[in-house]
Amino acid sequence: MDDSKEENFLYLTRAGIDTHQEPVVYMREDCHVCRSEGFSAQGRVRVCVGERSIIATLNIVTGDLLSHQKAALSDSAWELLGAKEGDRAWFKHALPVESMSHVRGKLYGRKIGLEAARAIISDIHDARYSDIQLAAYVTACAANNLSLDETIAITRAMVECGQSFHWGDEVQVLDKHCVGGLPGNRTTPIVVAIVAANGLMMPKTSSRAITSPAGTADTMETLTTVTLSYEKMREVVRTQGACLAWGGSVSLSPTDDIIIRVERALDLDSEGQLVASVISKKLAAGSTHVLIDIPVGPTAKVRSQELAEVLGALLVDTGKALGMQVRTVISDGSQPVGHGVGPALEARDVLAVLKRSKGAPQDLRQRALTLAAQLLEMGGVSPPGDGLALASKTLDSGAAWDRFVAICEAQGGLKTPSLAPYRHPIVASKDGVVAMFNNRVISRLASLAGAPSAPSAGIDLHVRLGDKVEKGQPLMTLHAEARGELEYALDFYHAHPEALHIEEEVV
Amino acid sequence: MDDSKEENFLYLTRAGIDTHQEPVVYMREDCHVCRSEGFSAQGRVRVCVGERSIIATLNIVTGDLLSHQKAALSDSAWELLGAKEGDRAWFKHALPVESMSHVRGKLYGRKIGLEAARAIISDIHDARYSDIQLAAYVTACAANNLSLDETIAITRAMVECGQSFHWGDEVQVLDKHCVGGLPGNRTTPIVVAIVAANGLMMPKTSSRAITSPAGTADTMETLTTVTLSYEKMREVVRTQGACLAWGGSVSLSPTDDIIIRVERALDLDSEGQLVASVISKKLAAGSTHVLIDIPVGPTAKVRSQELAEVLGALLVDTGKALGMQVRTVISDGSQPVGHGVGPALEARDVLAVLKRSKGAPQDLRQRALTLAAQLLEMGGVSPPGDGLALASKTLDSGAAWDRFVAICEAQGGLKTPSLAPYRHPIVASKDGVVAMFNNRVISRLASLAGAPSAPSAGIDLHVRLGDKVEKGQPLMTLHAEARGELEYALDFYHAHPEALHIEEEVV
Repeated sequence: MDDSKEENFLYLTRAGIDTHQEPVVYMREDCHVCRSEGFSAQGRVRVCVGERSIIATLNIVTGDLLSHQKAALSDSAWELLGAKEGDRAWFKHALPVESMSHVRGKLYGRKIGLEAARAIISDIHDARYSDIQLAAYVTACAANNLSLDETIAITRAMVECGQSFHWGDEVQVLDKHCVGGLPGNRTTPIVVAIVAANGLMMPKTSSRAITSPAGTADTMETLTTVTLSYEKMREVVRTQGACLAWGGSVSLSPTDDIIIRVERALDLDSEGQLVASVISKKLAAGSTHVLIDIPVGPTAKVRSQELAEVLGALLVDTGKALGMQVRTVISDGSQPVGHGVGPALEARDVLAVLKRSKGAPQDLRQRALTLAAQLLEMGGVSPPGDGLALASKTLDSGAAWDRFVAICEAQGGLKTPSLAPYRHPIVASKDGVVAMFNNRVISRLASLAGAPSAPSAGIDLHVRLGDKVEKGQPLMTLHAEARGELEYALDFYHAHPEALHIEEEVV
Repeated sequence: MDDSKEENFLYLTRAGIDTHQEPVVYMREDCHVCRSEGFSAQGRVRVCVGERSIIATLNIVTGDLLSHQKAALSDSAWELLGAKEGDRAWFKHALPVESMSHVRGKLYGRKIGLEAARAIISDIHDARYSDIQLAAYVTACAANNLSLDETIAITRAMVECGQSFHWGDEVQVLDKHCVGGLPGNRTTPIVVAIVAANGLMMPKTSSRAITSPAGTADTMETLTTVTLSYEKMREVVRTQGACLAWGGSVSLSPTDDIIIRVERALDLDSEGQLVASVISKKLAAGSTHVLIDIPVGPTAKVRSQELAEVLGALLVDTGKALGMQVRTVISDGSQPVGHGVGPALEARDVLAVLKRSKGAPQDLRQRALTLAAQLLEMGGVSPPGDGLALASKTLDSGAAWDRFVAICEAQGGLKTPSLAPYRHPIVASKDGVVAMFNNRVISRLASLAGAPSAPSAGIDLHVRLGDKVEKGQPLMTLHAEARGELEYALDFYHAHPEALHIEEEVV
């Protein structure tokens, strides 16, 4: 077929519409291209400019937004194609994505082998899957529908799809990960400092928050520079044995983010896909020894000990198959960790623990020490059983703090986190005992207050489970950078008192 | 939560963008609503105007398309909300759709019971599912993943969701359906005329084409009025025993179209969902005796005899559970039926058969007689085994033609289908035998020539499987209403010679 008939082009313009990852092309239904190609709304269209081309979903312009000679691209389509205003583009029906046949095969009971996994993941990576195709893939893999072998195949394919770090052939590279964030569970900076202070290598890359009020990268950004080039990162690691960088500037297992977005929109977990996501990121980061924290609690991501154990085994086995030693720690996920929820407030807690300040949150300290202890043992600098003593000594001696400062200096200097200008206390409505936290509602509350895009926004918690409180006593303080956001979070709190449940004391 | 804070509104405007079924709302990311609510791209947002509200997917306007005081709605969102230009709208995060928990449950191995089916189908009906949620539902039900009981539950829920016809308590109501259209397989008008001429009731509602070059409603529209009110339809049926109306003006099992669109986009079949779609439409139409034509062929929807039998059994059993007698006919799906493909060209074939014209396509005649015979037997006007004789007599005597004319007159008058102004023959490139048709490519070719929106466009086929042809002999003629469409179809044909395969004759 003569796909690029000379006259059958439109001039590209930027629509100025963010459709998230799905590339969208906008055309008038009465333009010559739509008419001659027989395109219809939501069809999948190949957009070609010179040698470059992308697949986009068609939205038909029925009004006067667009001239007959133009096609507009959504932000993601524009970036993906590398388009320029006024580029001439040719259009044709996109061929069906062939790897979808493997997704269909899975639904008919066929297993996903390595070649199938590679085809699917590489098409996802190249944005050839529409959102509904992604949803079909995620659904086909959902629940506990992936075997260990399938999980291994998908993990391997995800690693191959992005950049990888290599730190040397004989080098131990330590890493940690937390499945399903508890609000405030910001152990990473403390753990990295303790581990690096003991001479082990821990080149930590972290994510920013997507829906949570803070990711480790957001928290660290209130303390130092986290957007490091590949070269800069290697240099920091060479001198300090560790870094605390944002992972987004290097492209490690990039399909992970695409898949996670759809899983989240569907509120659909896939054990196998979760394992593939975690392990692929760690493999791509060049890690050899990985510790995974699995908090368990009624409002945490993993809700029972049993599920945590199944997940843990799958993580360990998948890592092992791909040459990585994985250990898991099942931890208490019943309440937020530390006092602060939000980038700067969590950074304050991290600094307090590292500096051994009076009032430093003991739960954050204990969790960090437990994780660091395991890593010290995995890394062979402590005999089994002695890790906790070494971790505590490293923290209490100030060695961890010194190393943390050195890492921040190497990354661009240590900053002081800012303080939010607007604050509002939330007080107990009655006497009683703090009986339950809803982690999800607490996270949402901190997000509505502005975290993480407003870095000093969030929540400062003043009570923990089991604390006795009196009517009128402050339970937490909302922090915000704009009055509107503060009010909005307050409104949300009043509509969702389940954030923190006070029960009358049983005498 | 005070969701409709007085000042937190935007003025609605129509975006003039057709996003198909998924309602989309467009807002600037820096408008006060996006900021205060913390909305992000692709989030699900409840849009409220007065007492009315819809759920829409958020697309963020990053350019200057929209003022800070406005939100724009896609065409489907606009219709669904019944919005007016300048309406004040309030916005909040949409609550998670609760029935998705049943979809998740299905993935974890729980069966979909009647209550779950009702919840899912009613949410789909009310446009509460985003496209990716629909994709997850369709995927969860895909392949042969629905049991008979689940299929029955979903069928019942789909019927309950729309209008239903009731033709009287003791009345037999006949109906037919074809699974997966062969191009040109337009038996319905002939079957209805024969059945009605024998005093049986057959109030036929048909669909328009979605991706095929013609639906029965499109074909009938070239001959008479098919958009009938409920009352008009009843009146036609009362006087003629039958009608040939478009089903879209009455809302029978409306979720069917929504689900089918996503299945098609994913190229994903669900046996159970297909059965639920077919049976629910027939139940809603008030049918008591239904004959289902299942064409089998390598490029038909059903590709093997075995699959056809499994599907047939599921159709019969589901119908039975819901009080409807279903019979199936497995037919040859190896090539298009009749000569014409496209609304007017198929109408011409139908008229030729009904009028016993010389050159009337014998395959169309035979298929129609076979189906009519079964219905005459099911309806009890012919003893088992004698239906074919009665059907032939009804057709050959002119009684079927007379009844067809009477039905068309009752619906608004019989018209003559128009002829396409642009035509182009496609000739054999070599001597040989017609060895294979690709039904999908033939359909696509007719669609590209303009069918069905250009009613006289399509293909006129001059040869059938097994015919000897000589180089240069016309194989088919393309019909179009615009020169551009004719050329486009021709280009497509040249790129897809597999539409019709000529093999050298084995001597």
